Amino acid sequence: MSTTIVRLDTHDLRFPTSRWLDGSDAMNPDPDYSAAHVVVHTDADDGYEGHGYVFTIGRGNDVQTAAIAALAPLVVGLPLADTLADMAALSRRLVHDSQFRWLGPEKGVMHMAIGAVVNALWDLKAKRAGKPLWRLLAELTPEQIVDLVDFRYLTDVLDRDQALDILRAAVPGRAERTARLLADGYPAYTTSPGWLGYDDAKLARLCREAMDSGFTHLKLKVGADLADDVRRLGLARSTCGRDVRIAVDANQRWDTGTAIRWIQALSEFDPAWVEEPTSPDDVLAHAAIARAVAPIRIATGEHLANRVVAKQLLQAKAVDILQIDATRVAGVNENVANLLLAARFGVPVCPHGGGVGLCELVQHLAMFDYVAVSGSLDGRVIEHVEHLHEHFVDPVVVRSGRYRAPTAPGFSSTLRPDSVRAHAFPYGPVWAADR
Amino acid sequence: MSTTIVRLDTHDLRFPTSRWLDGSDAMNPDPDYSAAHVVVHTDADDGYEGHGYVFTIGRGNDVQTAAIAALAPLVVGLPLADTLADMAALSRRLVHDSQFRWLGPEKGVMHMAIGAVVNALWDLKAKRAGKPLWRLLAELTPEQIVDLVDFRYLTDVLDRDQALDILRAAVPGRAERTARLLADGYPAYTTSPGWLGYDDAKLARLCREAMDSGFTHLKLKVGADLADDVRRLGLARSTCGRDVRIAVDANQRWDTGTAIRWIQALSEFDPAWVEEPTSPDDVLAHAAIARAVAPIRIATGEHLANRVVAKQLLQAKAVDILQIDATRVAGVNENVANLLLAARFGVPVCPHGGGVGLCELVQHLAMFDYVAVSGSLDGRVIEHVEHLHEHFVDPVVVRSGRYRAPTAPGFSSTLRPDSVRAHAFPYGPVWAADR
Repeated sequence: MSTTIVRLDTHDLRFPTSRWLDGSDAMNPDPDYSAAHVVVHTDADDGYEGHGYVFTIGRGNDVQTAAIAALAPLVVGLPLADTLADMAALSRRLVHDSQFRWLGPEKGVMHMAIGAVVNALWDLKAKRAGKPLWRLLAELTPEQIVDLVDFRYLTDVLDRDQALDILRAAVPGRAERTARLLADGYPAYTTSPGWLGYDDAKLARLCREAMDSGFTHLKLKVGADLADDVRRLGLARSTCGRDVRIAVDANQRWDTGTAIRWIQALSEFDPAWVEEPTSPDDVLAHAAIARAVAPIRIATGEHLANRVVAKQLLQAKAVDILQIDATRVAGVNENVANLLLAARFGVPVCPHGGGVGLCELVQHLAMFDYVAVSGSLDGRVIEHVEHLHEHFVDPVVVRSGRYRAPTAPGFSSTLRPDSVRAHAFPYGPVWAADR
Repeated sequence: MSTTIVRLDTHDLRFPTSRWLDGSDAMNPDPDYSAAHVVVHTDADDGYEGHGYVFTIGRGNDVQTAAIAALAPLVVGLPLADTLADMAALSRRLVHDSQFRWLGPEKGVMHMAIGAVVNALWDLKAKRAGKPLWRLLAELTPEQIVDLVDFRYLTDVLDRDQALDILRAAVPGRAERTARLLADGYPAYTTSPGWLGYDDAKLARLCREAMDSGFTHLKLKVGADLADDVRRLGLARSTCGRDVRIAVDANQRWDTGTAIRWIQALSEFDPAWVEEPTSPDDVLAHAAIARAVAPIRIATGEHLANRVVAKQLLQAKAVDILQIDATRVAGVNENVANLLLAARFGVPVCPHGGGVGLCELVQHLAMFDYVAVSGSLDGRVIEHVEHLHEHFVDPVVVRSGRYRAPTAPGFSSTLRPDSVRAHAFPYGPVWAADR
């Protein structure tokens, strides 16, 4: 009897982070971190579920959840083994559905919904294989990896053969890098001290605590008020000294001219990079800013709509660091494309973490990149934010400023059943007090 | 007693166009043209409703409708007169809501939902003013028009003062152009003959009928098979002669290299323009294609996510014609920005029509552009498709290949109540037979 996908369950989960101003920045004053959550059920008797989600910041999480549910007819009833054996076909089925595609194309709510379903199926595939996702991916052959990628719209800079060359060049060192990863972990940086809503005393205290925990790289939110930014960055610099790397993040706050002036005013603090200076859609503006403020480095990517925008940012030399996000694009498959594009241009990938379960997901992508794609840790760090990990069955483990390599099978995306029950919006017990 | 917005009603409306292959192209083989429809109700006793919608092509129209409904808490309860008096504030309230914004930002399902609500309120404002929307807009002062625009992310190429210069230069001829528009209408082109699913006999017959109706410009879908395209374009050219302009539309089918080769292979048929050669997000690819195939002209815009992408297409000389869409961006306000950007670069705007009610909407934007922004009809045509106009209270009127200027108050967006009832998905009578 063949096994099939029998059901997608979706949940609108919200965490009341606005009560403490966690996650506050220049564009997002009071987010309630949320997850549009999906669980893929099968009729196998192995007990495995595939978990995926889209991270949002509150209002609209119901719309995002509805978008995931709308994909059920494209997935329910598919034979499980064949589907998991050809994840590229599954990804194409969803991304190129001619009617759903109109709602993007390949961007926004519908595209993120596809990402949640694709990621949930990768979680399920890795659980059934008994491996953490990073390892499952890193043990594929170069041919199997390129088969995951949709090269449509990429071939002017990266085709299948060029991608194969990148992956084949990384094969010889795979075993050594895997061993090193398991022994030493992957470098992390922390954003926990730098939320815009925190006062100076809390900022300084959290900087000290970050250093005490072994972090040598942290990030501050900027962009709302220049005088405040100068004061806060000065405080962080004097607290941390010159050896700690301090990145800053403007969360899309500026136009091009303002970005250039503001970044120049912050240059005395030696920022490790300046993140999201302007609209994530504006390739040409990022390029103009990067040219004007060099050698200060420009980073973006957490709001990158898809691989086509990633390609252009790299083509135009608009970013020095590409910050992939696990739930913004169409899942693992599109992020494999993004990793290959970055490798093609020699640009390091430093994934976006935080939110709900983004650290849990991106650690797998960064570790796969290290073992099998870029083959390098040079200039590479995964964002770490100390939020909401307690809701996951296999939460990230960060020690002495490094992510430990996950060993549990899957994508580390499984939410705890009690957390799902408690945070259901608007009827879960966490929200009952507000009603 | 002050009047307020009391309710948004939404409807998932679908029209079974796939039964006849109307609307079929290289990316969309079997669309069911749909509208996620919103009606804004007030407690005024004037009987006016504001109608807006997002055009989609079937699956996912429920998600789009849910996104519109999710905006109700931001609009219901607002004082009507103040809201309609400051449409820029209303637009900002929706576009920059910090939580909803995460779902784009400014793209996809959530952004289109905002467009439907903004457009519905413009419809209401124009009805209450007793004027067709094009005229309401064209009678605003230059200062009032620039006040509608969100210049965020635009100031590297267009600021308020530069926009004012454009608008002030067009003031002197407004009265004359209004009179000419009312007398002669606005040039149209027709896509009705060229859908990819039609056979050669139907194509030739529809070409002849288009010419008999007075059209001197038509458009064919291409991009699925080069031999078919050569045969169909040859047939259209031999049917129409050399004096009729024939544009072609690839609906995003190609990568850069393929686009260049394919367009060169079609050049013997003297295409008026080549539309959507590749991904609508790919500014750099459009620029490369435009450079390679010049003097053949490149057009795109119906899937343009927002004004930031429009800006870049113009900056990079990636388009010779900008094809704004009425329901893809955040409504009238963002399209005023797009019209100003095009005028700044001297690029003609030829709006995207078709779908459900897109012709009804874009005619107002093009006519406003003629009277008050670009001041020109040179190289400008509005797409016309002979679909679904019967469902509108004030359908477009096209005679001898020209749109007649609408005279009824509003945005021509009011759907007939019987059409709304009949096409409700999935329980309306039109769909009952499929169940």
